[in-house]
Amino acid sequence: MGILVHLPSFMAGPITAALREAAPDIPVWNGRENAPAHEVEAIMAWGLKPGVLPAFPNLRLVCAAAAGVDKLLAAPDLPAGMPVTRVVDPGQQTGIAHYVLAMALRHARRLGSYAEQQRRGEWKRHPAPDLSCCRVGVLGMGEIGSAVARTFAAIGFPVAGWSRSGKGIPGVTDYTGDAGLSAMLARTDILVCTLPLTPQTQGLLNRQTLSQLPAGAFFINVGRGEHLVEPDLVALIDEGHLAGAALDVFAKEPPEPGDPVWNHPRIEATPHIACDPSYELVARQCVENVRRMRDGRELMNLVDRAAGY
Amino acid sequence: MGILVHLPSFMAGPITAALREAAPDIPVWNGRENAPAHEVEAIMAWGLKPGVLPAFPNLRLVCAAAAGVDKLLAAPDLPAGMPVTRVVDPGQQTGIAHYVLAMALRHARRLGSYAEQQRRGEWKRHPAPDLSCCRVGVLGMGEIGSAVARTFAAIGFPVAGWSRSGKGIPGVTDYTGDAGLSAMLARTDILVCTLPLTPQTQGLLNRQTLSQLPAGAFFINVGRGEHLVEPDLVALIDEGHLAGAALDVFAKEPPEPGDPVWNHPRIEATPHIACDPSYELVARQCVENVRRMRDGRELMNLVDRAAGY
Ligand SMILES: NC(=O)c1ccc[n+]([C@@H]2O[C@H](COP(=O)([O-])OP(=O)(O)OC[C@H]3O[C@@H](n4cnc5c(N)ncnc54)[C@H](OP(=O)(O)O)[C@@H]3O)[C@@H](O)[C@H]2O)c1
Ligand SMILES: NC(=O)c1ccc[n+]([C@@H]2O[C@H](COP(=O)([O-])OP(=O)(O)OC[C@H]3O[C@@H](n4cnc5c(N)ncnc54)[C@H](OP(=O)(O)O)[C@@H]3O)[C@@H](O)[C@H]2O)c1
Repeated sequence: MGILVHLPSFMAGPITAALREAAPDIPVWNGRENAPAHEVEAIMAWGLKPGVLPAFPNLRLVCAAAAGVDKLLAAPDLPAGMPVTRVVDPGQQTGIAHYVLAMALRHARRLGSYAEQQRRGEWKRHPAPDLSCCRVGVLGMGEIGSAVARTFAAIGFPVAGWSRSGKGIPGVTDYTGDAGLSAMLARTDILVCTLPLTPQTQGLLNRQTLSQLPAGAFFINVGRGEHLVEPDLVALIDEGHLAGAALDVFAKEPPEPGDPVWNHPRIEATPHIACDPSYELVARQCVENVRRMRDGRELMNLVDRAAGY
Repeated sequence: MGILVHLPSFMAGPITAALREAAPDIPVWNGRENAPAHEVEAIMAWGLKPGVLPAFPNLRLVCAAAAGVDKLLAAPDLPAGMPVTRVVDPGQQTGIAHYVLAMALRHARRLGSYAEQQRRGEWKRHPAPDLSCCRVGVLGMGEIGSAVARTFAAIGFPVAGWSRSGKGIPGVTDYTGDAGLSAMLARTDILVCTLPLTPQTQGLLNRQTLSQLPAGAFFINVGRGEHLVEPDLVALIDEGHLAGAALDVFAKEPPEPGDPVWNHPRIEATPHIACDPSYELVARQCVENVRRMRDGRELMNLVDRAAGY
């Protein structure tokens, strides 16, 4: 019995190699066509098209090759009791926090405007904002959101976080529920989405919610593209209510050539690079879970399928 | 007896107001032409052209309106024993640290290149660097350099600092002296200059020193323009040895229209905005020192005129 790697080619090669390195005793097949169907006990995947899962009658575990599992849980033929695990990588969390910090500081310190001034040959100074005008609000306070919130708190920003349960992180004000969301939006100058994509969070960032941010606020999305109703964001920027946005994730990746995110002067768009997990860690966590499953032990980083994350 | 405010007009108004607010009992004159020469006991200044100081026979204190005093100490008619004080503002230190962090993270995470890709409509992912490839080296570990170093250390970067005396800050490797400079340059991917301008530090960043940085290194200057031999920096970037630079200070401010910093695609130039001190604090520290001087008490933030900072 062994592991099927079912991933886009750019990840499949290195993750297959890392799995073989991590578990020389476990067969690892790169690609469906190379796997003996009855011997596949675990699949390492990012998304699963209909028809993939039923081909493997002895499958007992689905391992996401990422922190987010929305594409996997969306598979219509995922059996009801099938355990799904995900990746938790502290290095990835730090990387995402640094990406968010880079975008937030560039906005807060007007460095994009200064770059425009430089191109025009203009020497004009604007006062640096007081940190009390750079209130950060983090949507989703899981592994990634907490790392983002802690990073901002560590360097002196006022930080709040929104989750279902509240976190009690020192220096970070907790908000929960619908009322909590409105309250947090009203006090947030830099809004960061690190939510997982679920039926509850899809389309959460729309005109109704984003317009609750104070005028001049900035939005950073490192969750999923589907959290955002992109035309609402663009309209609020064009109307002057929001100062701009940094988007790392999109409902369609890459966005269509005509998508306004490519050319909007107040939107920085990056190609889903906030931070990948390390392939070695993806492989080690998968192997560990295969062994635990074989031994009947509790799995690590198990997804709550009912909650959707 | 009172305080003469001798500052460029954009600072003179607010600092005069802040001084009057801080000390309603002390006369404050905005501009030489308004001051009774014999009653000036302290001057608040940024630079002092020859001829200014001898006009005030009862002057006993020169207060810099900034952290750096190079322009004041350069005054040829500054009497030998005249005490010079400077500003130490924790808010300014934080602001400068955030500016440096913004520039460093943008470089480290290739966000400038991604912005170019966006303009070209290109979706291409590059792996995020490991933090071990983002070794920060801070030149000058005083109030500002220490704040910069602590900020990077707090968010997980490997950090070293160069000073005359060594600092012993947890998580920051100390380097001192000429040998220490070479050793630090050899292990530094992101070099930050926070030095004061003195005869020893003028022109320190030149081809000989900058070429000791590893290939692909990035330079950030928030010290003084005169620390840098700008043509050497530009040449090392054009030759491909350095990846680029962020410059907030220039030997001439603003730089001449033909200066390459205006148009170089790998240089971000900002108009000396890393962070100003708060005018209220500038005023409060000046008033405190005037009172201490009157009482014969030790002055705060006194400059070591022999050392030049
Ligand atoms: N851009 C990138 O490169 C990149 C990379 C990795 C991941 N991501 C995205 O980041 C997401 C989050 O990852 P993670 O590891 O931090 O996930 P996680 O540890 O599962 O945390 C999810 C957080 O969201 C909160 N949440 C979920 N549903 C909510 C709701 N309806 N209302 C309020 N809060 C809700 C949870 O609240 P509780 O704590 O109360 O449960 C939790 O704090 C992933 O799902 C993925 O989409 C992006
Ligand atoms: N861009 C901006 O907006 C901005 C704003 C404010 C200030 N600045 C600049 O920042 C400078 C530093 O300010 P600060 O408050 O941090 O000054 P500071 O507290 O006086 O610190 C100066 C540091 O430089 C070190 N140093 C001086 N000469 C040296 C030499 N020859 N070799 C090695 N190290 C040397 C000192 O070493 P020791 O600790 O061993 O004495 C000290 O650590 C100011 O002078 C000003 O030019 C820029």
